Amino acid sequence: MPRKFKSRAKKIGLPPGSLIHIGERCAVETKITLLDYDESQFQEREIKTIAECQPFKDRNTVTWLHINCIHDIKILEELGDVFALHPLTLEDILNTDQRPKMEDFGEYIYIVLKNFYKPNDQSYEIISEQISIILGSGFIISLQEKETDLFKPIRERIKTVKGRLRKSGADYLVHALMDTIVDHYFVILEKLGEQIELTEESLIRNPSTETLRTIQNLKREMLFLRKTVWPLRETVNSFERSESPLIHKSTGIYLKDIYDHTIQVIDTIETYRDMLSGMLDIYLSSISNRLNEVMKVLTVIATIFMPLTFLAGVYGMNFKYMPELEWHWGYFTVWAIMITIAVLMLFFFKRRKWL
Amino acid sequence: MPRKFKSRAKKIGLPPGSLIHIGERCAVETKITLLDYDESQFQEREIKTIAECQPFKDRNTVTWLHINCIHDIKILEELGDVFALHPLTLEDILNTDQRPKMEDFGEYIYIVLKNFYKPNDQSYEIISEQISIILGSGFIISLQEKETDLFKPIRERIKTVKGRLRKSGADYLVHALMDTIVDHYFVILEKLGEQIELTEESLIRNPSTETLRTIQNLKREMLFLRKTVWPLRETVNSFERSESPLIHKSTGIYLKDIYDHTIQVIDTIETYRDMLSGMLDIYLSSISNRLNEVMKVLTVIATIFMPLTFLAGVYGMNFKYMPELEWHWGYFTVWAIMITIAVLMLFFFKRRKWL
Amino acid sequence: MPRKFKSRAKKIGLPPGSLIHIGERCAVETKITLLDYDESQFQEREIKTIAECQPFKDRNTVTWLHINCIHDIKILEELGDVFALHPLTLEDILNTDQRPKMEDFGEYIYIVLKNFYKPNDQSYEIISEQISIILGSGFIISLQEKETDLFKPIRERIKTVKGRLRKSGADYLVHALMDTIVDHYFVILEKLGEQIELTEESLIRNPSTETLRTIQNLKREMLFLRKTVWPLRETVNSFERSESPLIHKSTGIYLKDIYDHTIQVIDTIETYRDMLSGMLDIYLSSISNRLNEVMKVLTVIATIFMPLTFLAGVYGMNFKYMPELEWHWGYFTVWAIMITIAVLMLFFFKRRKWL
Amino acid sequence: MPRKFKSRAKKIGLPPGSLIHIGERCAVETKITLLDYDESQFQEREIKTIAECQPFKDRNTVTWLHINCIHDIKILEELGDVFALHPLTLEDILNTDQRPKMEDFGEYIYIVLKNFYKPNDQSYEIISEQISIILGSGFIISLQEKETDLFKPIRERIKTVKGRLRKSGADYLVHALMDTIVDHYFVILEKLGEQIELTEESLIRNPSTETLRTIQNLKREMLFLRKTVWPLRETVNSFERSESPLIHKSTGIYLKDIYDHTIQVIDTIETYRDMLSGMLDIYLSSISNRLNEVMKVLTVIATIFMPLTFLAGVYGMNFKYMPELEWHWGYFTVWAIMITIAVLMLFFFKRRKWL
Amino acid sequence: MPRKFKSRAKKIGLPPGSLIHIGERCAVETKITLLDYDESQFQEREIKTIAECQPFKDRNTVTWLHINCIHDIKILEELGDVFALHPLTLEDILNTDQRPKMEDFGEYIYIVLKNFYKPNDQSYEIISEQISIILGSGFIISLQEKETDLFKPIRERIKTVKGRLRKSGADYLVHALMDTIVDHYFVILEKLGEQIELTEESLIRNPSTETLRTIQNLKREMLFLRKTVWPLRETVNSFERSESPLIHKSTGIYLKDIYDHTIQVIDTIETYRDMLSGMLDIYLSSISNRLNEVMKVLTVIATIFMPLTFLAGVYGMNFKYMPELEWHWGYFTVWAIMITIAVLMLFFFKRRKWL
Repeated sequence: MPRKFKSRAKKIGLPPGSLIHIGERCAVETKITLLDYDESQFQEREIKTIAECQPFKDRNTVTWLHINCIHDIKILEELGDVFALHPLTLEDILNTDQRPKMEDFGEYIYIVLKNFYKPNDQSYEIISEQISIILGSGFIISLQEKETDLFKPIRERIKTVKGRLRKSGADYLVHALMDTIVDHYFVILEKLGEQIELTEESLIRNPSTETLRTIQNLKREMLFLRKTVWPLRETVNSFERSESPLIHKSTGIYLKDIYDHTIQVIDTIETYRDMLSGMLDIYLSSISNRLNEVMKVLTVIATIFMPLTFLAGVYGMNFKYMPELEWHWGYFTVWAIMITIAVLMLFFFKRRKWL
Repeated sequence: MPRKFKSRAKKIGLPPGSLIHIGERCAVETKITLLDYDESQFQEREIKTIAECQPFKDRNTVTWLHINCIHDIKILEELGDVFALHPLTLEDILNTDQRPKMEDFGEYIYIVLKNFYKPNDQSYEIISEQISIILGSGFIISLQEKETDLFKPIRERIKTVKGRLRKSGADYLVHALMDTIVDHYFVILEKLGEQIELTEESLIRNPSTETLRTIQNLKREMLFLRKTVWPLRETVNSFERSESPLIHKSTGIYLKDIYDHTIQVIDTIETYRDMLSGMLDIYLSSISNRLNEVMKVLTVIATIFMPLTFLAGVYGMNFKYMPELEWHWGYFTVWAIMITIAVLMLFFFKRRKWL
Repeated sequence: MPRKFKSRAKKIGLPPGSLIHIGERCAVETKITLLDYDESQFQEREIKTIAECQPFKDRNTVTWLHINCIHDIKILEELGDVFALHPLTLEDILNTDQRPKMEDFGEYIYIVLKNFYKPNDQSYEIISEQISIILGSGFIISLQEKETDLFKPIRERIKTVKGRLRKSGADYLVHALMDTIVDHYFVILEKLGEQIELTEESLIRNPSTETLRTIQNLKREMLFLRKTVWPLRETVNSFERSESPLIHKSTGIYLKDIYDHTIQVIDTIETYRDMLSGMLDIYLSSISNRLNEVMKVLTVIATIFMPLTFLAGVYGMNFKYMPELEWHWGYFTVWAIMITIAVLMLFFFKRRKWL
Repeated sequence: MPRKFKSRAKKIGLPPGSLIHIGERCAVETKITLLDYDESQFQEREIKTIAECQPFKDRNTVTWLHINCIHDIKILEELGDVFALHPLTLEDILNTDQRPKMEDFGEYIYIVLKNFYKPNDQSYEIISEQISIILGSGFIISLQEKETDLFKPIRERIKTVKGRLRKSGADYLVHALMDTIVDHYFVILEKLGEQIELTEESLIRNPSTETLRTIQNLKREMLFLRKTVWPLRETVNSFERSESPLIHKSTGIYLKDIYDHTIQVIDTIETYRDMLSGMLDIYLSSISNRLNEVMKVLTVIATIFMPLTFLAGVYGMNFKYMPELEWHWGYFTVWAIMITIAVLMLFFFKRRKWL
Repeated sequence: MPRKFKSRAKKIGLPPGSLIHIGERCAVETKITLLDYDESQFQEREIKTIAECQPFKDRNTVTWLHINCIHDIKILEELGDVFALHPLTLEDILNTDQRPKMEDFGEYIYIVLKNFYKPNDQSYEIISEQISIILGSGFIISLQEKETDLFKPIRERIKTVKGRLRKSGADYLVHALMDTIVDHYFVILEKLGEQIELTEESLIRNPSTETLRTIQNLKREMLFLRKTVWPLRETVNSFERSESPLIHKSTGIYLKDIYDHTIQVIDTIETYRDMLSGMLDIYLSSISNRLNEVMKVLTVIATIFMPLTFLAGVYGMNFKYMPELEWHWGYFTVWAIMITIAVLMLFFFKRRKWL
């Protein structure tokens, strides 16, 4: 739970636009990758300062600046200067505790997205990172919280294939980035789906407190995903409907495609939530069922042995005049009676389906 | 559950419009059926390549191309070329994991629908297949995921009756296809309704863990249907309200009819869901009731025999001076006392309605 | 439940407008009643064929054709011919499985309503019948599924009183019919309310599995009513707001009145649903309470007699050297100890409020 | 419950506008109070017939006619004649089973409100009465179901203070009446709040079936209030937004104030509902907890005495050759073993926190 | 609970705008702080009467009047006179039982907000205070219910930094105040988050009735926060969208930022609520689990010792002819049989996983 609520207390009283990094620092240094391409040519370069991309910025090509690890405030300030970003944009990039959103600043469009990782297949925990995308005229800046090479497939597509990506503008590249992120959601959901399936099997075979805790953990992860995906839908929708000149009309149909995928993600999450609720019901009723089983055993045992013990007790009494005790076959008669009682009881429980 | 979530992981990083079939392959080959008709004439033919329907396409007649089994990517590419379909349409046709939707591409309207099968009456499982319909000017293409002859009744109606279908345009044929699919939903719901009824009876007669699992399975199937039918409603609605020149005004009232049917399907699903929830409540309370029954048996037995056994124990003590033991009628007096106690207890439980 | 879902399977693949009666047949023949009136004159007549009303149709008076029992398809076909009804209207009249709705066909307005009966006061079952109303220019056709004389009070009002009904047009008569139906809902709700009250009393006095089943049955009937009344509200609303020239402005305020009644019906249904849910909670907790009671009895008995039996067992041992056995008052001392233990236990349970 | 659903069955088939009183009759006679005031002068008088207020009606002053007890149909008919009220308005006044609503009849605005009483502090029952307000040009008629002097403070304010009320028109007086009624809601809620608090305390101290019933009763009263307050909000809102010339713009801000109060009432009701739901959860879990306690006592007793009784039974056997029986210290050794077992058991239960 | 519902009963029947303080009085006197600044100069002063700020009011600078402790009605009346506030505004300031809202009075905008305190880290209780902000042309009045120095950081920023605050107008100062309050919500939520985490741990380690009460208390606090934050969202939104000339367009983007924060607060509250509901489920199932454990112990003990005690009872019978009793190894054989039975039982329970 604490992972989902990063401390903002240190920002109280500060003016808006104060650049303070909220979130975990990367283990490695900030890495800046520059891509510059149009239909005919292509250039890739790793740069150290933002100033290096100044010459590419105003050319007629698409310039894609990708920054991994955003904790370095100096680089962000430089970025703000070179690309004339609003202080609030810089603040939002640094504050990795944002909901997905789109903001149109006129000169550029700022988009916040969330990407998810599942560190290992055993645990249920999902880790999120914030992806900020800035779409300007002829350039696009993407900022990723962590150091993974999330957009490698897109870089490869730009490099190798002379397809739509090379022919289209920066807005189509934004679409490609968003598409990659939303596709990642399906991978996460697939993994969670498998864990739900496993939990369901163990619920039927052998429900334990462990199973309950797994169900609750999976429910919580669903909550966590849901909290992100609903605003994502809004974000994609408002990006699609935006009337900004930065977005070409022809990109609209591709954004609609992403919107459809987002709704599919939401659908799946809601289905999983319903399934997990159903599993909770089964778990609770299986506890009651087992209590029933235990009580039946106890009742059967008690019902059989209590009358027998009573009978044995009766003939253990020391009254002077107890005629049965004198009979030669008395002892064996009592045994016969006892066995008859026990068999009748068992028969009775059999008919009640308790055995 | 896995059936409801087909793997999309293999599509990550690929450009949109990449033609990859997501879903199960048909066991048989792709089959293409061509129908060409107007009020005066009629033609049916099975073709091998899409190119064969080129001559029919631009004639003044209605041309209906029906394709069973969509896993053959080459045929789809040819289809895209001949009918000038957008790559995203082709991608959506192949990806059988879509929600029902309608998309207006100007030149044509693309509709995704879902059809349901219930493979056998014993299990609760419902299987879905994707139906894609493309309505162009004077032609209509329907693509069905599986090999069943779903639209046979409509083909028969076209062949034999010179009714509204022969007189009307391609948009009315789309209505006929949609109507067939929605009517299928009623069949599925009727079957599920019967299973709910059976489960309800077994819930009253003899509730078991099996009953609980059946209730949960039926609930899940309802979820599955619901997930499809809500967007279907939207789809029918937006098709009806579409201002595309491909849809004649006179078809509107028939589409309204389908819309009404869809709402009826939704109503029935919601009613079933509520009924299943009520059955869950009854199941849970019947478990508690049975525990009560078991405990009452135990308590009655213990309450009767514990005092008696105690009494027998008392007169089994070996004190030297126990006057009762010497009495001639002592033993029979004790029996009398014991029987009195037992009868009083039974009377007490009778009055408390435990017996 | 099956009553709520009439078979539609036989309609699959048929063209829309196919006249097939879905629902139960009346036991008696179709009965057609014709009423023709204006402010000055009045005429009532039972007719055999629809053709007989041809002369009345185009006169300046209000012509009201009421048909009981709608299973006769020939009469309906004739009706369609004489009054120029759309095939879909005829299909909807015959299909008694409709939701309340209003459809404006320009020449006439078609309204579907539901009326409810409660066959007897003991059972909870509510039976519905479909009422179709067609409002044309100067005429109105009402079609009732069953043979009861539902609209008798209105006929009487037309005959005897020269009130608003005689002075107003056909649209006001439609209002009168709708008003009668909605007023019937209050009667049904009043009866259900009494049953809920009875169930509540029996829940407090003596909750049994029977009570639970009654609660669930009443909940189901509420579901059934609710499913009908919500679309009814929509229907009344769209009838009121309709801009059709068939409805005079002055009728609007009366329709608003019906709308208010419909909302009151919805309110009452929702209140009943909430009450029934509360009763379910009480039932479930009363089961747990009773288990508690049973267990307390068992525990009290066991806690008192187990130590006593143990004590009796101790002095039933056959050790050679057991000094207490030799004491003259040993036996009576043991009795004293036993009674002290029992009294202390009872005192303890009294303080814990278990007795 | 029956209180909430007054019989409407007697109205079936009657034309709308039929004047039939639905509700309980007052014990006393109808009382009509007339107030006539403007900034400079003031007049109060009790009248017997509506006709007496004719002269005041068309003067330039504000005329306020207040009627207590509305069961006298003749007075209502006279009222309808003198003030030209629509028959439906008169019907709605008499039918005390209305939801709060506002209707604009052009010449006048008709408002239905509900006032609540809590007859005594012990019971939870809330009693409602219907207040009808008719705002015309220069006059206002208020009709109260019961005989209490609800609006006395306002009459006093008009008489004694030459404040806003005397200076403003009839619409401001309507605001004052509504404000008084909404303020009454806070009183009712405060009393209910105290009862909820008491119930909560008794839930923690000593939860009993009585507590459960109290919770359910309070929940029901909340439902009852809620059903009234939600439409009240709508009513106040539409009165505020009304474009009727009968309402001056300057009154709007005061109506907004009432609207805010209504939302506060709704908020409080929803909070109380949530609190009562939470209390239900606590109640149910406290039952389970107590069952646990009972079972622990039983288990502790059985676990201690069953082995001991067994041991005593062993040495009560009558075998000829049982060496322990001959030992001199045998008896005391057995006692020592028994006490050791009991102590070990108690220690074990202590560690498991069962004691 | 009583804290959340301050008494309004004393206001019944009073005219609107009556100045009555509803809420708790501060322990200290009302304190008025005046700040007057523009880009070039700055002045801070503590004043005694509102009249002292008259000279600052109409200057071209921003005048910020901050009042701590609002129970002094005289000061408020003076405030109303000097700044020409509507009586309803003054009434709302005094009535500390308001929902967050914004009201545009033309000459000024009145905003009600809520600030939260958590008096100590052990208890769960949250205390709220009402903050009223009045934004006029060139002046801003903030009124705080309690005596804490909530806005100190902002005063410091104005004094020390010549930043945006000094350069911008009064509307930006309003933004800064709102931002401070919303940031406080994050602090409260962080503390509650920690308590939820602690409760979760104790729920897993050792669930007790105390845990249940903590969960319910935390849920109640969530309800309390939620009730305030939802209308806050509305307030911020309507302030942002206001077309009042008092708000500059450039401030809009900063208000959007606060709006985003408010949504994040709502998100967190909803997440916490869901987590607490999940914890309730776990608590309830853990009670059932423990009952199961207790019953298993009882059943195991009873099942082992009942047959043994019965056997001992059998050989304690006093029949004359019982051959086993004469056998030399009889006693030891019985012991052997008893131990065998006990071991078999234990083995059986081991396999059933009851031990």
